[in-house]
Amino acid sequence: MQQVICTVDLVLLTLQDGVLKVALHKRERAPFEGVAALPGGFIHPAEDANTRSAALRVLREKTAIVPPYLEQLATFSGPARDPRGWSVSIVYYALVPFDVVEGAVTADLKLASVDERLDLPFDHRQIVDAAVARLRSKSQYSSLPCHLAGDTFTLPQLQRVYEALMGEPLNKVSFRRKITEMDMLEPVEGMFSSGAAHRPAQLYRLKPALRDRLTLIERGL
Amino acid sequence: MQQVICTVDLVLLTLQDGVLKVALHKRERAPFEGVAALPGGFIHPAEDANTRSAALRVLREKTAIVPPYLEQLATFSGPARDPRGWSVSIVYYALVPFDVVEGAVTADLKLASVDERLDLPFDHRQIVDAAVARLRSKSQYSSLPCHLAGDTFTLPQLQRVYEALMGEPLNKVSFRRKITEMDMLEPVEGMFSSGAAHRPAQLYRLKPALRDRLTLIERGL
Repeated sequence: MQQVICTVDLVLLTLQDGVLKVALHKRERAPFEGVAALPGGFIHPAEDANTRSAALRVLREKTAIVPPYLEQLATFSGPARDPRGWSVSIVYYALVPFDVVEGAVTADLKLASVDERLDLPFDHRQIVDAAVARLRSKSQYSSLPCHLAGDTFTLPQLQRVYEALMGEPLNKVSFRRKITEMDMLEPVEGMFSSGAAHRPAQLYRLKPALRDRLTLIERGL
Repeated sequence: MQQVICTVDLVLLTLQDGVLKVALHKRERAPFEGVAALPGGFIHPAEDANTRSAALRVLREKTAIVPPYLEQLATFSGPARDPRGWSVSIVYYALVPFDVVEGAVTADLKLASVDERLDLPFDHRQIVDAAVARLRSKSQYSSLPCHLAGDTFTLPQLQRVYEALMGEPLNKVSFRRKITEMDMLEPVEGMFSSGAAHRPAQLYRLKPALRDRLTLIERGL
Protein backbone atom coordinates (compact mmCIF):
# COMPACT_ATOMS: atom_id res chain seq x y z
CA MET A 1 0.00 0.00 0.00
CA GLN A 2 1.15 3.55 -0.74
CA GLN A 3 2.68 5.15 2.34
CA VAL A 4 1.39 8.23 4.11
CA ILE A 5 3.95 10.92 4.96
CA CYS A 6 3.66 11.98 8.61
CA THR A 7 4.93 15.35 9.82
CA VAL A 8 4.36 17.90 12.55
CA ASP A 9 4.17 21.65 11.89
CA LEU A 10 4.22 24.55 14.32
CA VAL A 11 2.47 27.89 14.33
CA LEU A 12 4.47 29.97 16.81
CA LEU A 13 2.55 33.16 17.56
CA THR A 14 3.73 36.26 19.40
CA LEU A 15 2.55 39.81 19.91
CA GLN A 16 5.01 42.55 18.88
CA ASP A 17 3.83 46.12 19.59
CA GLY A 18 0.21 45.01 19.40
CA VAL A 19 0.67 43.15 16.11
CA LEU A 20 0.13 39.38 16.03
CA LYS A 21 3.10 37.70 14.32
CA VAL A 22 3.99 34.19 13.21
CA ALA A 23 7.49 32.68 13.17
CA LEU A 24 8.73 31.49 9.77
CA HIS A 25 11.82 29.37 9.30
CA LYS A 26 13.94 29.12 6.15
CA ARG A 27 13.64 25.55 4.85
CA GLU A 28 16.92 23.64 4.89
CA ARG A 29 16.02 21.15 2.17
CA ALA A 30 13.70 20.35 -0.73
CA PRO A 31 10.86 20.74 -1.33
CA PHE A 32 10.86 24.56 -1.19
CA GLU A 33 14.52 24.72 -0.06
CA GLY A 34 15.40 28.23 1.17
CA VAL A 35 11.75 29.33 1.36
CA ALA A 36 10.28 30.70 4.61
CA ALA A 37 7.71 28.29 6.02
CA LEU A 38 6.26 27.10 9.31
CA PRO A 39 8.85 25.17 11.32
CA GLY A 40 8.12 21.48 10.84
CA GLY A 41 9.60 18.05 10.43
CA PHE A 42 9.09 14.32 10.36
CA ILE A 43 8.07 12.33 13.40
CA HIS A 44 11.05 10.35 14.74
CA PRO A 45 9.53 7.16 16.16
CA ALA A 46 12.77 6.22 17.90
CA GLU A 47 12.84 9.39 20.01
CA ASP A 48 9.37 11.00 20.08
CA ALA A 49 6.90 9.90 22.79
CA ASN A 50 3.98 11.31 20.78
CA THR A 51 3.27 14.07 18.25
CA ARG A 52 3.41 16.71 20.99
CA SER A 53 6.95 15.63 21.87
CA ALA A 54 7.81 15.67 18.18
CA ALA A 55 6.50 19.24 17.91
CA LEU A 56 8.52 20.37 20.95
CA ARG A 57 11.65 18.70 19.55
CA VAL A 58 11.23 20.35 16.13
CA LEU A 59 10.70 23.75 17.76
CA ARG A 60 13.76 23.27 19.96
CA GLU A 61 15.93 22.21 17.00
CA LYS A 62 14.81 25.03 14.70
CA THR A 63 14.27 27.91 17.11
CA ALA A 64 15.74 26.88 20.49
CA ILE A 65 12.43 28.00 22.04
CA VAL A 66 10.56 26.09 24.76
CA PRO A 67 7.03 27.52 24.49
CA PRO A 68 5.08 28.30 27.69
CA TYR A 69 1.88 27.25 25.90
CA LEU A 70 1.44 24.60 23.21
CA GLU A 71 -1.85 23.14 21.98
CA GLN A 72 -2.80 20.78 19.19
CA LEU A 73 -4.60 22.78 16.50
CA ALA A 74 -5.73 20.15 13.97
CA THR A 75 -4.41 17.68 11.45
CA PHE A 76 -4.17 18.73 7.81
CA SER A 77 -4.04 16.09 5.09
CA GLY A 78 -4.40 15.11 1.46
CA PRO A 79 -2.57 14.06 -1.70
CA ALA A 80 -1.68 17.57 -2.93
CA ARG A 81 -0.50 19.60 0.07
CA ASP A 82 3.04 18.16 -0.05
CA PRO A 83 4.75 17.45 -3.40
CA ARG A 84 6.33 14.32 -1.90
CA GLY A 85 2.98 12.52 -1.72
CA TRP A 86 -0.12 11.88 0.39
CA SER A 87 0.62 13.48 3.74
CA VAL A 88 -0.78 14.28 7.14
CA SER A 89 0.61 17.08 9.25
CA ILE A 90 -0.36 17.24 12.89
CA VAL A 91 -0.23 20.95 13.67
CA TYR A 92 0.40 22.58 17.05
CA TYR A 93 0.27 26.24 17.88
CA ALA A 94 2.53 27.85 20.45
CA LEU A 95 2.12 31.16 22.26
CA VAL A 96 5.37 32.82 23.23
CA PRO A 97 5.95 36.31 24.74
CA PHE A 98 7.81 38.60 22.36
CA ASP A 99 10.91 39.03 24.54
CA VAL A 100 11.50 35.26 24.35
CA VAL A 101 11.03 35.13 20.56
CA GLU A 102 13.18 38.22 20.07
CA GLY A 103 16.14 36.44 21.60
CA ALA A 104 15.73 33.53 19.15
CA VAL A 105 15.44 35.48 15.90
CA THR A 106 18.28 34.61 13.50
CA ALA A 107 18.94 34.91 9.78
CA ASP A 108 16.87 31.73 9.34
CA LEU A 109 14.02 32.65 11.65
CA LYS A 110 11.88 35.71 11.06
CA LEU A 111 8.55 37.11 12.19
CA ALA A 112 5.75 38.16 9.85
CA SER A 113 2.41 39.78 10.64
CA VAL A 114 -0.40 37.24 10.31
CA ASP A 115 -2.42 39.86 8.42
CA GLU A 116 0.32 40.35 5.82
CA ARG A 117 0.01 38.76 2.40
CA LEU A 118 2.37 35.85 2.96
CA ASP A 119 3.42 33.62 0.13
CA LEU A 120 3.85 30.37 2.04
CA PRO A 121 4.56 26.88 0.69
CA PHE A 122 2.37 23.79 1.23
CA ASP A 123 -0.99 24.70 2.84
CA HIS A 124 0.80 26.81 5.45
CA ARG A 125 -1.26 29.94 4.76
CA GLN A 126 -4.44 28.00 5.52
CA ILE A 127 -2.82 26.55 8.66
CA VAL A 128 -1.79 30.02 9.93
CA ASP A 129 -5.34 31.29 9.35
CA ALA A 130 -6.79 28.35 11.30
CA ALA A 131 -4.41 28.98 14.23
CA VAL A 132 -5.20 32.69 14.33
CA ALA A 133 -8.94 31.97 14.20
CA ARG A 134 -8.60 29.50 17.10
CA LEU A 135 -6.57 31.96 19.18
CA ARG A 136 -8.95 34.86 18.54
CA SER A 137 -12.01 32.76 19.27
CA LYS A 138 -10.59 31.34 22.52
CA SER A 139 -9.41 34.77 23.62
CA GLN A 140 -13.02 35.80 24.05
CA TYR A 141 -13.65 33.49 26.96
CA SER A 142 -10.39 32.14 28.36
CA SER A 143 -7.04 32.80 30.00
CA LEU A 144 -5.23 31.96 26.74
CA PRO A 145 -4.00 35.50 25.93
CA CYS A 146 -2.04 35.66 29.20
CA HIS A 147 0.57 33.43 27.59
CA LEU A 148 1.41 36.27 25.20
CA ALA A 149 1.74 38.83 28.01
CA GLY A 150 5.03 37.67 29.51
CA ASP A 151 5.78 36.31 32.99
CA THR A 152 4.44 39.37 34.79
CA PHE A 153 2.21 42.19 33.62
CA THR A 154 0.00 44.98 34.85
CA LEU A 155 -3.75 44.86 34.28
CA PRO A 156 -3.57 47.64 31.64
CA GLN A 157 -0.86 45.65 29.80
CA LEU A 158 -3.02 42.52 29.89
CA GLN A 159 -6.03 44.49 28.63
CA ARG A 160 -3.95 45.67 25.64
CA VAL A 161 -3.06 42.04 24.83
CA TYR A 162 -6.74 41.02 24.87
CA GLU A 163 -7.63 44.07 22.77
CA ALA A 164 -4.95 43.28 20.19
CA LEU A 165 -6.25 39.72 19.83
CA MET A 166 -9.91 40.68 19.72
CA GLY A 167 -9.31 43.64 17.44
CA GLU A 168 -11.36 46.11 19.44
CA PRO A 169 -11.11 48.31 22.51
CA LEU A 170 -12.57 46.79 25.69
CA ASN A 171 -14.34 48.55 28.51
CA LYS A 172 -11.94 48.69 31.47
CA VAL A 173 -14.52 47.97 34.17
CA SER A 174 -16.10 45.05 32.37
CA PHE A 175 -12.66 43.67 31.42
CA ARG A 176 -11.57 43.67 35.05
CA ARG A 177 -14.80 42.03 36.15
CA LYS A 178 -14.29 39.17 33.65
CA ILE A 179 -10.66 38.75 34.69
CA THR A 180 -11.75 38.53 38.33
CA GLU A 181 -14.48 36.06 37.37
CA MET A 182 -11.90 33.83 35.66
CA ASP A 183 -9.85 33.81 38.90
CA MET A 184 -6.63 33.28 36.98
CA LEU A 185 -4.18 35.89 38.26
CA GLU A 186 -2.17 36.37 41.41
CA PRO A 187 -0.33 39.54 42.40
CA VAL A 188 3.45 39.28 42.45
CA GLU A 189 4.28 40.36 45.99
CA GLY A 190 6.20 43.58 46.21
CA MET A 191 6.53 43.96 42.43
CA PHE A 192 5.27 47.09 40.78
CA SER A 193 5.71 48.42 37.29
CA SER A 194 7.43 51.78 37.25
CA GLY A 195 5.37 53.39 34.51
CA ALA A 196 6.82 56.85 33.84
CA ALA A 197 4.06 59.38 34.43
CA HIS A 198 1.82 57.22 36.62
CA ARG A 199 1.96 55.81 40.09
CA PRO A 200 3.48 52.33 40.20
CA ALA A 201 1.04 49.59 39.10
CA GLN A 202 0.77 46.14 40.69
CA LEU A 203 2.29 43.33 38.65
CA TYR A 204 0.40 40.08 38.22
CA ARG A 205 1.14 36.63 36.87
CA LEU A 206 -0.92 33.62 35.85
CA LYS A 207 -1.66 31.28 38.75
CA PRO A 208 0.76 28.33 38.56
CA ALA A 209 -2.10 25.82 38.13
CA LEU A 210 -3.16 27.62 34.95
CA ARG A 211 0.17 27.59 33.17
CA ASP A 212 -0.63 24.42 31.25
CA ARG A 213 -4.39 24.41 31.15
CA LEU A 214 -6.91 27.13 30.39
CA THR A 215 -9.55 28.60 32.60
CA LEU A 216 -12.82 29.46 30.93
CA ILE A 217 -15.51 31.90 31.82
CA GLU A 218 -18.38 29.84 33.14
CA ARG A 219 -21.48 30.72 31.19
CA GLY A 220 -23.72 27.75 30.70
CA LEU A 221 -27.06 27.84 28.96
CA MET B 1 13.55 5.27 9.16
CA GLN B 2 10.89 3.40 11.16
CA GLN B 3 7.45 3.96 9.65
CA VAL B 4 4.54 5.62 11.40
CA ILE B 5 1.19 3.79 11.19
CA CYS B 6 -1.57 6.16 10.09
CA THR B 7 -5.24 5.43 10.87
CA VAL B 8 -8.53 7.22 11.37
CA ASP B 9 -10.94 6.36 14.17
CA LEU B 10 -14.54 7.41 14.70
CA VAL B 11 -16.54 8.24 17.80
CA LEU B 12 -20.16 7.97 16.67
CA LEU B 13 -22.40 9.42 19.37
CA THR B 14 -26.15 9.21 19.68
CA LEU B 15 -28.79 9.88 22.33
CA GLN B 16 -31.07 6.95 23.22
CA ASP B 17 -33.82 7.75 25.76
CA GLY B 18 -31.71 10.55 27.21
CA VAL B 19 -28.56 8.40 27.51
CA LEU B 20 -25.48 9.33 25.47
CA LYS B 21 -24.19 6.25 23.64
CA VAL B 22 -21.18 5.43 21.50
CA ALA B 23 -21.12 2.97 18.59
CA LEU B 24 -18.70 0.06 18.93
CA HIS B 25 -17.82 -2.28 16.08
CA LYS B 26 -16.51 -5.83 16.38
CA ARG B 27 -12.95 -5.86 14.99
CA GLU B 28 -12.58 -8.04 11.91
CA ARG B 29 -8.86 -8.70 12.26
CA ALA B 30 -5.86 -8.63 14.61
CA PRO B 31 -4.91 -6.94 16.79
CA PHE B 32 -7.89 -7.43 19.11
CA GLU B 33 -9.83 -9.51 16.56
CA GLY B 34 -13.46 -9.94 17.61
CA VAL B 35 -13.24 -7.22 20.28
CA ALA B 36 -15.67 -4.26 20.27
CA ALA B 37 -13.81 -1.03 19.46
CA LEU B 38 -14.29 2.32 17.80
CA PRO B 39 -14.80 1.90 14.05
CA GLY B 40 -11.49 2.74 12.39
CA GLY B 41 -9.12 1.88 9.59
CA PHE B 42 -6.09 2.78 7.57
CA ILE B 43 -5.97 5.78 5.28
CA HIS B 44 -6.18 4.66 1.64
CA PRO B 45 -4.08 7.20 -0.27
CA ALA B 46 -5.39 5.99 -3.62
CA GLU B 47 -9.00 6.79 -2.78
CA ASP B 48 -9.16 9.22 0.18
CA ALA B 49 -9.09 12.98 -0.54
CA ASN B 50 -8.09 13.70 3.06
CA THR B 51 -8.51 12.22 6.54
CA ARG B 52 -12.12 13.46 6.69
CA SER B 53 -12.92 11.47 3.53
CA ALA B 54 -11.14 8.48 5.01
CA ALA B 55 -13.28 8.77 8.16
CA LEU B 56 -16.49 8.97 6.13
CA ARG B 57 -15.43 5.97 4.02
CA VAL B 58 -14.61 3.87 7.10
CA LEU B 59 -17.95 4.79 8.69
CA ARG B 60 -19.81 3.92 5.49
CA GLU B 61 -18.02 0.57 5.16
CA LYS B 62 -18.50 -0.46 8.78
CA THR B 63 -21.91 1.02 9.64
CA ALA B 64 -23.51 2.21 6.37
CA ILE B 65 -24.17 5.53 8.14
CA VAL B 66 -23.67 8.95 6.56
CA PRO B 67 -23.47 11.25 9.61
CA PRO B 68 -25.24 14.63 9.53
CA TYR B 69 -22.41 16.10 11.62
CA LEU B 70 -18.73 15.13 11.61
CA GLU B 71 -15.88 17.07 13.21
CA GLN B 72 -12.21 16.40 13.74
CA LEU B 73 -11.63 15.77 17.43
CA ALA B 74 -7.84 15.44 17.74
CA THR B 75 -4.95 13.21 16.78
CA PHE B 76 -3.76 10.58 19.24
CA SER B 77 -0.27 9.16 18.92
CA GLY B 78 2.66 7.28 20.40
CA PRO B 79 4.66 4.06 20.41
CA ALA B 80 2.40 2.05 22.76
CA ARG B 81 -1.22 2.76 21.78
CA ASP B 82 -1.18 0.21 18.92
CA PRO B 83 0.72 -3.10 19.28
CA ARG B 84 1.73 -2.86 15.61
CA GLY B 85 4.07 0.07 16.27
CA TRP B 86 4.35 3.86 16.52
CA SER B 87 1.01 5.17 15.34
CA VAL B 88 -1.08 8.25 14.84
CA SER B 89 -4.85 8.11 14.71
CA ILE B 90 -6.73 11.11 13.43
CA VAL B 91 -10.02 10.94 15.30
CA TYR B 92 -13.37 12.35 14.18
CA TYR B 93 -16.59 12.42 16.13
CA ALA B 94 -19.98 12.08 14.51
CA LEU B 95 -23.39 13.03 15.88
CA VAL B 96 -26.25 10.91 14.57
CA PRO B 97 -29.93 10.89 15.64
CA PHE B 98 -30.94 7.63 17.29
CA ASP B 99 -33.48 6.59 14.64
CA VAL B 100 -30.69 6.59 12.03
CA VAL B 101 -28.30 4.57 14.23
CA GLU B 102 -31.07 2.15 15.22
CA GLY B 103 -31.52 1.14 11.59
CA ALA B 104 -27.80 0.36 11.29
CA VAL B 105 -27.33 -1.78 14.39
CA THR B 106 -26.22 -5.33 13.51
CA ALA B 107 -24.56 -8.22 15.31
CA ASP B 108 -21.23 -6.45 14.68
CA LEU B 109 -22.33 -2.95 15.66
CA LYS B 110 -23.63 -2.16 19.13
CA LEU B 111 -24.28 0.85 21.31
CA ALA B 112 -22.85 1.36 24.78
CA SER B 113 -23.48 4.12 27.29
CA VAL B 114 -20.46 6.44 27.45
CA ASP B 115 -20.75 6.39 31.25
CA GLU B 116 -20.52 2.58 31.40
CA ARG B 117 -17.26 0.92 32.38
CA LEU B 118 -16.12 -0.08 28.89
CA ASP B 119 -13.15 -2.33 28.39
CA LEU B 120 -11.91 -0.95 25.07
CA PRO B 121 -8.71 -1.82 23.20
CA PHE B 122 -5.97 0.66 22.17
CA ASP B 123 -6.51 4.09 23.80
CA HIS B 124 -10.17 4.06 22.75
CA ARG B 125 -11.50 4.71 26.26
CA GLN B 126 -9.43 7.91 26.44
CA ILE B 127 -10.64 8.88 22.95
CA VAL B 128 -14.31 8.38 23.88
CA ASP B 129 -13.81 10.50 27.00
CA ALA B 130 -12.23 13.29 24.94
CA ALA B 131 -15.11 13.24 22.44
CA VAL B 132 -17.74 13.35 25.19
CA ALA B 133 -15.93 16.21 26.92
CA ARG B 134 -15.80 18.16 23.65
CA LEU B 135 -19.49 17.55 22.94
CA ARG B 136 -20.57 18.51 26.46
CA SER B 137 -18.42 21.61 26.49
CA LYS B 138 -19.62 22.81 23.08
CA SER B 139 -23.24 22.08 23.99
CA GLN B 140 -23.11 24.93 26.48
CA TYR B 141 -22.82 27.60 23.84
CA SER B 142 -23.60 26.21 20.39
CA SER B 143 -26.10 24.62 18.03
CA LEU B 144 -24.20 21.31 18.19
CA PRO B 145 -26.83 19.31 20.16
CA CYS B 146 -29.41 19.89 17.41
CA HIS B 147 -27.64 17.23 15.37
CA LEU B 148 -28.71 14.64 17.95
CA ALA B 149 -32.35 15.77 17.89
CA GLY B 150 -33.37 14.42 14.49
CA ASP B 151 -34.52 16.27 11.38
CA THR B 152 -37.45 17.96 13.12
CA PHE B 153 -38.20 18.47 16.78
CA THR B 154 -40.33 20.52 19.15
CA LEU B 155 -38.71 23.00 21.51
CA PRO B 156 -39.40 20.76 24.56
CA GLN B 157 -37.72 17.86 22.72
CA LEU B 158 -34.70 20.03 21.95
CA GLN B 159 -34.51 21.20 25.55
CA ARG B 160 -34.40 17.56 26.70
CA VAL B 161 -31.46 16.93 24.34
CA TYR B 162 -29.54 19.90 25.76
CA GLU B 163 -30.40 18.76 29.29
CA ALA B 164 -29.20 15.21 28.64
CA LEU B 165 -25.86 16.52 27.32
CA MET B 166 -25.36 19.07 30.06
CA GLY B 167 -26.51 16.71 32.79
CA GLU B 168 -28.86 19.16 34.46
CA PRO B 169 -32.36 20.61 34.07
CA LEU B 170 -32.51 23.96 32.25
CA ASN B 171 -34.87 26.82 32.88
CA LYS B 172 -37.42 26.87 30.03
CA VAL B 173 -37.55 30.64 29.64
CA SER B 174 -33.80 31.13 29.63
CA PHE B 175 -33.33 28.11 27.33
CA ARG B 176 -35.74 29.61 24.78
CA ARG B 177 -34.04 33.00 25.00
CA LYS B 178 -30.64 31.44 24.25
CA ILE B 179 -32.08 29.42 21.38
CA THR B 180 -33.60 32.60 19.92
CA GLU B 181 -30.31 34.43 20.43
CA MET B 182 -28.48 31.73 18.44
CA ASP B 183 -30.95 32.24 15.57
CA MET B 184 -30.49 28.66 14.41
CA LEU B 185 -33.99 27.22 14.00
CA GLU B 186 -36.78 27.63 11.49
CA PRO B 187 -40.36 26.38 11.93
CA VAL B 188 -41.39 23.59 9.56
CA GLU B 189 -44.48 25.03 7.93
CA GLY B 190 -47.66 23.22 8.73
CA MET B 191 -45.90 20.54 10.79
CA PHE B 192 -46.95 19.93 14.35
CA SER B 193 -46.13 17.19 16.79
CA SER B 194 -49.24 15.35 17.97
CA GLY B 195 -48.23 14.93 21.61
CA ALA B 196 -50.94 12.88 23.33
CA ALA B 197 -52.30 14.96 26.19
CA HIS B 198 -51.15 18.36 24.94
CA ARG B 199 -52.12 20.64 22.13
CA PRO B 200 -50.01 20.11 19.00
CA ALA B 201 -46.55 21.70 19.23
CA GLN B 202 -44.76 23.45 16.37
CA LEU B 203 -41.93 21.42 14.81
CA TYR B 204 -38.61 23.09 14.07
CA ARG B 205 -35.47 22.20 12.17
CA LEU B 206 -31.93 23.57 11.98
CA LYS B 207 -31.57 26.34 9.40
CA PRO B 208 -29.99 24.82 6.27
CA ALA B 209 -26.92 27.10 6.54
CA LEU B 210 -26.15 25.60 9.96
CA ARG B 211 -26.21 21.96 8.98
CA ASP B 212 -22.45 21.83 8.45
CA ARG B 213 -21.21 24.62 10.66
CA LEU B 214 -22.04 25.64 14.19
CA THR B 215 -23.56 28.83 15.44
CA LEU B 216 -22.22 30.12 18.72
CA ILE B 217 -23.72 32.34 21.32
CA GLU B 218 -21.94 35.67 21.00
CA ARG B 219 -20.53 36.61 24.36
CA GLY B 220 -17.32 38.52 24.00
CA LEU B 221 -15.36 39.97 26.85
